[in-house]
Amino acid sequence: MENRQPQSATLLIYCEDRSGIIAAVTDFIHAHEGNIIYLDQYVDAEEKIFFMRIEWDLQTFVISPDKIETLFKEGLAKKYKMNYRLSFSDEKLRMAVFVSKLPHCLYDIVSRCQSGEWAIDIPLIISNHKELEPVAKSFGIDYHYIPITPENKPEQEAKQVELLKKNNVDFIVLARYMQILSESFIKNYPSQIINIHHSFLPAFPGAKPYHSAHKRGVKIIGATSHYVTADLDEGPIIEQDVVRVTHVDSIKDLIRKGRDLEKIVLSRAVYAHFQRKTLVYKNRTIVFN
Amino acid sequence: MENRQPQSATLLIYCEDRSGIIAAVTDFIHAHEGNIIYLDQYVDAEEKIFFMRIEWDLQTFVISPDKIETLFKEGLAKKYKMNYRLSFSDEKLRMAVFVSKLPHCLYDIVSRCQSGEWAIDIPLIISNHKELEPVAKSFGIDYHYIPITPENKPEQEAKQVELLKKNNVDFIVLARYMQILSESFIKNYPSQIINIHHSFLPAFPGAKPYHSAHKRGVKIIGATSHYVTADLDEGPIIEQDVVRVTHVDSIKDLIRKGRDLEKIVLSRAVYAHFQRKTLVYKNRTIVFN
Amino acid sequence: MENRQPQSATLLIYCEDRSGIIAAVTDFIHAHEGNIIYLDQYVDAEEKIFFMRIEWDLQTFVISPDKIETLFKEGLAKKYKMNYRLSFSDEKLRMAVFVSKLPHCLYDIVSRCQSGEWAIDIPLIISNHKELEPVAKSFGIDYHYIPITPENKPEQEAKQVELLKKNNVDFIVLARYMQILSESFIKNYPSQIINIHHSFLPAFPGAKPYHSAHKRGVKIIGATSHYVTADLDEGPIIEQDVVRVTHVDSIKDLIRKGRDLEKIVLSRAVYAHFQRKTLVYKNRTIVFN
Amino acid sequence: MENRQPQSATLLIYCEDRSGIIAAVTDFIHAHEGNIIYLDQYVDAEEKIFFMRIEWDLQTFVISPDKIETLFKEGLAKKYKMNYRLSFSDEKLRMAVFVSKLPHCLYDIVSRCQSGEWAIDIPLIISNHKELEPVAKSFGIDYHYIPITPENKPEQEAKQVELLKKNNVDFIVLARYMQILSESFIKNYPSQIINIHHSFLPAFPGAKPYHSAHKRGVKIIGATSHYVTADLDEGPIIEQDVVRVTHVDSIKDLIRKGRDLEKIVLSRAVYAHFQRKTLVYKNRTIVFN
Repeated sequence: MENRQPQSATLLIYCEDRSGIIAAVTDFIHAHEGNIIYLDQYVDAEEKIFFMRIEWDLQTFVISPDKIETLFKEGLAKKYKMNYRLSFSDEKLRMAVFVSKLPHCLYDIVSRCQSGEWAIDIPLIISNHKELEPVAKSFGIDYHYIPITPENKPEQEAKQVELLKKNNVDFIVLARYMQILSESFIKNYPSQIINIHHSFLPAFPGAKPYHSAHKRGVKIIGATSHYVTADLDEGPIIEQDVVRVTHVDSIKDLIRKGRDLEKIVLSRAVYAHFQRKTLVYKNRTIVFN
Repeated sequence: MENRQPQSATLLIYCEDRSGIIAAVTDFIHAHEGNIIYLDQYVDAEEKIFFMRIEWDLQTFVISPDKIETLFKEGLAKKYKMNYRLSFSDEKLRMAVFVSKLPHCLYDIVSRCQSGEWAIDIPLIISNHKELEPVAKSFGIDYHYIPITPENKPEQEAKQVELLKKNNVDFIVLARYMQILSESFIKNYPSQIINIHHSFLPAFPGAKPYHSAHKRGVKIIGATSHYVTADLDEGPIIEQDVVRVTHVDSIKDLIRKGRDLEKIVLSRAVYAHFQRKTLVYKNRTIVFN
Repeated sequence: MENRQPQSATLLIYCEDRSGIIAAVTDFIHAHEGNIIYLDQYVDAEEKIFFMRIEWDLQTFVISPDKIETLFKEGLAKKYKMNYRLSFSDEKLRMAVFVSKLPHCLYDIVSRCQSGEWAIDIPLIISNHKELEPVAKSFGIDYHYIPITPENKPEQEAKQVELLKKNNVDFIVLARYMQILSESFIKNYPSQIINIHHSFLPAFPGAKPYHSAHKRGVKIIGATSHYVTADLDEGPIIEQDVVRVTHVDSIKDLIRKGRDLEKIVLSRAVYAHFQRKTLVYKNRTIVFN
Repeated sequence: MENRQPQSATLLIYCEDRSGIIAAVTDFIHAHEGNIIYLDQYVDAEEKIFFMRIEWDLQTFVISPDKIETLFKEGLAKKYKMNYRLSFSDEKLRMAVFVSKLPHCLYDIVSRCQSGEWAIDIPLIISNHKELEPVAKSFGIDYHYIPITPENKPEQEAKQVELLKKNNVDFIVLARYMQILSESFIKNYPSQIINIHHSFLPAFPGAKPYHSAHKRGVKIIGATSHYVTADLDEGPIIEQDVVRVTHVDSIKDLIRKGRDLEKIVLSRAVYAHFQRKTLVYKNRTIVFN
């Protein structure tokens, strides 16, 4: 950290709500000559929990980046029993993408990284199928084919975790990965695995949601991006969106319309995540503006 | 019918799909000097069912309105084993509105009728509560207070049906009516009872959907208008719409935002219904443009 | 104010951005035992202007409501050269509605007030036509018919202002009022007159926007609610929304679909206004959550 | 055409509206044992023009594909003075993409083609800049760098047309191509050049629409895809969509949110075009379902 000169620092905080927290945090920054660039806070009135995201300019801040955490912890976090996450603008997160056979979300994600739209790294793609290896190749990303069967699942997941650790992966995106992750796998990355489900959850969880939507005769279909927990399709929702359909639309049409929805919804969720705009509390996601 | 001179006639048709139906129907109108104003048709490729809505100008049509049905039935409907509904532009449908305590959908519906936006009559409002009687009064509509308990439900529903029949009601709108209709009641008005449910079905059926939506942490809430069948919240969907919410929105906010959604979605469904733009087949609603 | 015991106070503030404002304001409330219920702030980085909305519980607040303003002004507003507006939760705003012949927005607004959905008073409705007098009557609201011609405009507007002042009107809603207000009239109610324009501004300003939209072949139509300024259809936008249309939709269809849009968009804007969630700066409206 | 066995044929038709056209066209298909898969028609009541899209299965059709056009022309098109376009399901259109420096629309389009989502060919990409050549390379598509200056525009456009002709290009997509095409260029591809404009037209035509939108303080931004005509940003609109923004969004945020909108709106327009679902009449686009 010695020679780093990040432009700004961001704190994500939550703790029991008490009077004076905002004043205390803004005072902390103000007192050390920091300039607040972004502040958003929210109180869950039922749970009595305070949530905050604050970002400040480090140009004139008198504490050096490597000392901010210690000072903040001793000065404030302890007093208010805060859960917090400190990050700096020059940290580039490392993301692994898991895929099966469908390429649309993968293309969308990797092209955003390759074009520089997103400032994150993709050290590797992991798949239980070989189909998308050419896509990974054309973007110059390592592709690991790790087929999963009910029998080999534990050792294959162990192999996946090893690869992820070796590559210093910060978070994982399941870009239409058609495998259920085991609870023990998930524990390695709490609130760091993002899935896209091709329905408007909690409607149509599980397999073949477009078929179910067609059968039910809905007039709108949706897609849902959420953090993965041990309960399938039950994790905290990050983002959802919908598109109109009519009686004319066949299942094939729903799949086609849904494809665009899936990739946009997943990408919005990934963006919010790597911009450190999300905070998970119980089964809900706070998504700051 | 003798002195009537409706401007146009509308046929809603469905039957097993066969080659030549469109040609046969359009020929029928063309051969008798009718001018087609509207034609929309749709084939359910899986079920192999043909659906059509056709409207034509009667000014130059050489068959008089009171003879159209006989000729159509003998000439075409029998041959193709069609289910059909013939209506004329001068027929004004009669609608009953059922309410409990929440007024927003009621206000929206009656003001559309009173202002002439909708060409339908509301001969009566039925409620299991007294609260909305002043609203009915201010619009000059009969209000019938028929309280329902588990014990008196059969006789009270009988009283409702009697009133509906006496008033020649064509269809019923449940404008946030908080009672479940019995199967025997529903049988009197198949595909003629429209409900508004305050969620994006099939998500959150049953009671308190906004509470459930808040608990689940969804990022979008919805409302669904559907025909009432014996299966609660399972009838054929006519219209749905949604609105964005965030972690900031409390249950009270969801209720407030949902209120606007409910009234718009219900009114769109009622409009499609009385314009004879809907056809129910199995559990799906064909909604023509 | 002596016997009043409002539940909460709200401050809307804007001033030149300086370090430490948030800390100063939250300290002010905190130091006097107030509990912050709502805080949202925003910095216009280009203009270097700080905007804030803060609401706090008065139950434990040690300053009595009638002394808050003086203390705030002396203690903070002067120091930071703040523009501010203080309000209390028990203040009920008084709204005048201006209409011409179209009733849909009027019905929507008055039914929200009559049902208690909105805690505001409507002491009077003003119109340049007689058509909607029966609507006003059925809701028990005074209706003033003040026809406008190019010749009598100045004295008729003077009459309007007199009525508004006599009725202690706080703000005015133009619910499809088809008259242009003069600059001198507008000066009486700066940022207190809300209009609904039936297009997605800045597209199709002026007369007959649905006709223009149809001619241009747009695939989406919109409605815009804005504060009225001397420049027609150029005032700060509060809320907009849109609905899809297709080549099939005639001008009549656009008008019908637009009607629902107009009433919802106008009502959202009015709600934001009377909830003191809006702040106008130059030609933009800050709309707090 | 000799050995071709396309699955289906599609006719896009428009002509002066007359009684009996639908019957005549469906009779034509029916009489030759064709099975209608899709039929949509629309009458512009003001212009008195009839529009139709009809697709039928060729499996049992007794006329061979290469003779359909002659028979249709002699039998029907002449009688009704139809403008029509006949196409077959096995025809793969050839599309050229024009780009400048922004890659998001290009990535979206080429990945849809490479993955097989779209059954069209991209023989070449043309650009006035070198920046996106690596993207073209990674997808294996020819990239032609043709810089444009006011001086060299005529000869450079001539070079472009030559390339397009040599590559048998059917239609052109301007994927954020920052050059205005000359009238003489456009004449080569009437209703065959699709542009994406980054605003909700007719709001904010011309350069820097996000800056203008920010300045005007709109609450919704949009994107518009249209056929290119000699009048800049005035061509027939194919598709539009919008996304909400707030006072918090900077110009940079509008650009980011707009990017996703642009690529989705452009791709929907391209899809409708190559599926032969569009018909241009005067300045409006009929987009069949």
